[in-house]
Amino acid sequence: MREFELIKVVEELFGKEDLDVPAGTHDAAFLRRGTEFLVFTCDTVNEISDFPKYMKPGEFGKMAVAVTLSDLAASGARPMVFLSSISMKKADEELFRAILGGIKEWCEKFGVKVAGGDIDFSPVLTIAGFAVGAAKRVITRAKAKPGDRLFITAPLGKAQLCLEMLEKGFVRDELPYAEKLYTPEPRIDEGLRIAEFANALTDISDSLSVSAHLISRDSRVKVVLNPDVDLSHLTGYVDKEKALELFLFGGGDYELLFTAEDSDVGIEIGRIEEGSGVFLGKKALEFRGYSHF
Amino acid sequence: MREFELIKVVEELFGKEDLDVPAGTHDAAFLRRGTEFLVFTCDTVNEISDFPKYMKPGEFGKMAVAVTLSDLAASGARPMVFLSSISMKKADEELFRAILGGIKEWCEKFGVKVAGGDIDFSPVLTIAGFAVGAAKRVITRAKAKPGDRLFITAPLGKAQLCLEMLEKGFVRDELPYAEKLYTPEPRIDEGLRIAEFANALTDISDSLSVSAHLISRDSRVKVVLNPDVDLSHLTGYVDKEKALELFLFGGGDYELLFTAEDSDVGIEIGRIEEGSGVFLGKKALEFRGYSHF
Repeated sequence: MREFELIKVVEELFGKEDLDVPAGTHDAAFLRRGTEFLVFTCDTVNEISDFPKYMKPGEFGKMAVAVTLSDLAASGARPMVFLSSISMKKADEELFRAILGGIKEWCEKFGVKVAGGDIDFSPVLTIAGFAVGAAKRVITRAKAKPGDRLFITAPLGKAQLCLEMLEKGFVRDELPYAEKLYTPEPRIDEGLRIAEFANALTDISDSLSVSAHLISRDSRVKVVLNPDVDLSHLTGYVDKEKALELFLFGGGDYELLFTAEDSDVGIEIGRIEEGSGVFLGKKALEFRGYSHF
Repeated sequence: MREFELIKVVEELFGKEDLDVPAGTHDAAFLRRGTEFLVFTCDTVNEISDFPKYMKPGEFGKMAVAVTLSDLAASGARPMVFLSSISMKKADEELFRAILGGIKEWCEKFGVKVAGGDIDFSPVLTIAGFAVGAAKRVITRAKAKPGDRLFITAPLGKAQLCLEMLEKGFVRDELPYAEKLYTPEPRIDEGLRIAEFANALTDISDSLSVSAHLISRDSRVKVVLNPDVDLSHLTGYVDKEKALELFLFGGGDYELLFTAEDSDVGIEIGRIEEGSGVFLGKKALEFRGYSHF
């Protein structure tokens, strides 16, 4: 979990910048500009940590867009522009064109203009993505209220299931949710809708556990997950214990987690109470999930 | 010059995006928002290409800020926020803290808020910087007019002189312009002032030759540089021929190049005529300068 310790340094140094939501305190930063809030985020993917076996070059670009825009979805922001810095081993025009093609396709799909692409050199193929969006109001993971119900936008664990199947020797065509692993979609429309009524919102990139812990910490509340959550999307492939593990600790889903008094969007998976920590029923849930390093 | 070929791919794919100035056509992209233009840019530095010998970790951060904000200076924009994606070999908190400290110092110096810092892994220390600014009007390198005079904000070649002295075995304390090499400053205030009256504006990151060629190409004009330009800042260290080479083809100065009918800012170094190409007096000047790869 060293990445989280480094993020604390960001919060320490920049958590008091004169922004409406500063860096390190949410998935993206907010700055009021005229009648709206501009929302800024950056996220980086590389071939070692983020590009599963059998991933196609165009999908590298889509992944970079998805993880970055997911932070805007988690801020209830409408994405405006996307920029990227692509570090390649060498000046490979075919690869560069394929990556940019993926970026273009995914940006068009989610209504975002591509406003820049920088090139650099690295032995590890890396794409740093940056996005700017606009939001009507500030919503972060910091305003969950006791009494709120907890929701996710879709069943979790599919990407991690596929990743682990790859590690066991399955090929891409055999994966039940390949599209979830290779071409995840940021929940932009859902985020815009959820921001109208929810109290707290974040995305699930590392794991449900990590995101729930961040809501608990930042909102100073207790998060209680239902132990009898529906795992039928996983239990056809793994046993029930493993399915729960994937649901709670699997990364790469890029769904949204939010709390609200009520919601006609998403799946209810728990509730917010007074107190602290994250619980699965009565059992404390450890802070664990995917992390770089 | 492979980097320039790849940038053409960016222009080909994204040069028609619905922006007021799209990616690949200037140092930064412009998008009208309300009564102003938002200006977006990203730029990447790494320890192989961009961090000279003896550079301190805090200066890595300053460099990342300088090269990125220089694109906003070249757009006559007031910087609003800076974000960065830092790729390190391992989770080294001391290094991370030093880099962020440099970013903080340089952002404060130039009035920019730090709105995000992402962490990733790479065997090559790399910092991708991203900045958003606001401009009152669009100024690019595309509107130079025959009859304009050509200006730079300060004498050129100092950074390259120091870099080449390092290669010859000089140490940092012996360099005449160490601050220009290690801690270049983006010409933000100058850019804001120049944007009020200039016809074309760009920064000089790769070389004067490269920037002059880009003005010539995008404005469809002939750029004529004075052959008797003042080289006294260099001739104390190298002969006159080498001094001219550094002035024309040296990189890393991050000064601004602009064309205007007249200017009380900067140093006049040439003129704009009808035609095409870049000339030093009557001699065609080759397109050459610093490039990654």
